[in-house]
Amino acid sequence: MEAHEKGFFTEDDSVAVVTGRNENAKDQRLKQVMDVVTRKLHEAVKEIEPTQDEWMKAIFFLTQTGQICNEWRQEFILLSDVLGVSMLVDAINNRKPSGASESTVLGPFHVADAPELPMGANICLDQKGEDMVIEGRILDTDGQPITDALIDVWQANDEGFYDVQQKGIQPDFNLRGVFRTGPDGRYWFRAVKPKYYPIPDDGPVGQLLKELGRHPYRPAHLHYIIKADRFETLTTHIFDPDDPYINSDAVFGVKESLLAEFRRTRDPERSKQYQFAGDFWEVKHDFVLARANDECRGG
Amino acid sequence: MEAHEKGFFTEDDSVAVVTGRNENAKDQRLKQVMDVVTRKLHEAVKEIEPTQDEWMKAIFFLTQTGQICNEWRQEFILLSDVLGVSMLVDAINNRKPSGASESTVLGPFHVADAPELPMGANICLDQKGEDMVIEGRILDTDGQPITDALIDVWQANDEGFYDVQQKGIQPDFNLRGVFRTGPDGRYWFRAVKPKYYPIPDDGPVGQLLKELGRHPYRPAHLHYIIKADRFETLTTHIFDPDDPYINSDAVFGVKESLLAEFRRTRDPERSKQYQFAGDFWEVKHDFVLARANDECRGG
Repeated sequence: MEAHEKGFFTEDDSVAVVTGRNENAKDQRLKQVMDVVTRKLHEAVKEIEPTQDEWMKAIFFLTQTGQICNEWRQEFILLSDVLGVSMLVDAINNRKPSGASESTVLGPFHVADAPELPMGANICLDQKGEDMVIEGRILDTDGQPITDALIDVWQANDEGFYDVQQKGIQPDFNLRGVFRTGPDGRYWFRAVKPKYYPIPDDGPVGQLLKELGRHPYRPAHLHYIIKADRFETLTTHIFDPDDPYINSDAVFGVKESLLAEFRRTRDPERSKQYQFAGDFWEVKHDFVLARANDECRGG
Repeated sequence: MEAHEKGFFTEDDSVAVVTGRNENAKDQRLKQVMDVVTRKLHEAVKEIEPTQDEWMKAIFFLTQTGQICNEWRQEFILLSDVLGVSMLVDAINNRKPSGASESTVLGPFHVADAPELPMGANICLDQKGEDMVIEGRILDTDGQPITDALIDVWQANDEGFYDVQQKGIQPDFNLRGVFRTGPDGRYWFRAVKPKYYPIPDDGPVGQLLKELGRHPYRPAHLHYIIKADRFETLTTHIFDPDDPYINSDAVFGVKESLLAEFRRTRDPERSKQYQFAGDFWEVKHDFVLARANDECRGG
């Protein structure tokens, strides 16, 4: 009888010996997940051939990543983000029908109870930053406008901070709002030009990025969650294509189709109409929602 | 230009996009490790196709695994153990020349400053359990005895607990000791028959084992670290082959060559000599150390 048939571990049979223990699992999905995780872990270890010290460093890294987490900080999500795992899970779960807008990561700064505002409202409550007006349409994949779509938008300010990161400095619900479309599917609101910002980089994940020669910045963007009855909810961003970090988002959230044009506009008439003091930025972007039962494109 | 050439993430090019960011890493070994880790992680995600909820469950599991760690408990080592990763790292780092004794996991209960004892001492300080005498030789791969080898031994008691798990219940340094060989390479000491015991199973790793239908037990064993000048240090166990969990060690530490015979002995003369009250267990096991410069067998 071979060693692995007795349940004894050998380097060659390591995967079969370990996954063989999962045979009494009641949850077949968990069994499948752990079979794959075990196999890929062992493949990684066999390829890396870590020393005992390197293995211990990995143990400490994972431990510290767990221990820095609290109500406000999720370092394992950050790790998943910087290794591209979050975007991969997003891609797998959001294979869209042709023509629908693409999704990207939610990020940690969404707030569930942002106020619903009248169309055209200015979500910048502290007059800080460069004025911006954003407009567009919410459409179905046939190009028809969607009525009663809810557009939940949030963004960082001109220094790269969200309101929840600067409680007491920024007003509550600064640069957040929910808008509802009418029969024309149109939306528009006023805001300020967002800026690139670093992901939290004072923990183990920031240290890892440093050691890998990677910067921690995300290019400037606006977040959207767009919901409408009978359509798939869309969680996405739009990005400033001229941002210095547009080709190196630390969390890999950028997609070609999410680049919007941020156009600098001099138009005193419109400035006056928008109650802007002078020149402003102008962004036009349509979003296309997939029907809830639309067939997916697949991988 | 393709999306991935701009640093944009796509499902198909996910590995190249993420590992492409490591090109400025100063530490080439870290770069190599993270390249492999990223590739294997993405392979696992693509094979599993986790839902967003499953991904979040994995994030919570890792977070809780980190958060239960403290000075006395290392749940990520436990996770590494039950997934066979610790034994795999041990195997990779301890490819022995033919004839040398095999290694196994250190475990979390070694104490650095156990007392050196005279040969034959009884390491059981509380007279609890079934008497046992262990003897053998420390040899080189030519079968020659090794002088001045230090044998650091520790074990759980007859209820499956180490002294450090029962401070105030067991005497300090109960069932621990260090012995030094003379020119004949022989060692012997007295102890009690160890018992199987569960790894700590009240945390996330214990919960995972339960959900996988796995038990948390390790078969009865004695731990050894054997050191001698000019020889590789050997960290290993010997196991009781009649233990009910011998074919299903929760941490995969059992190897064929580590099975020792635990023989029940009735011999009033020897019982008297050993100061045992009656029948006793007898274990004979030789250990063979590899020379520090011996060539390894390789994988």
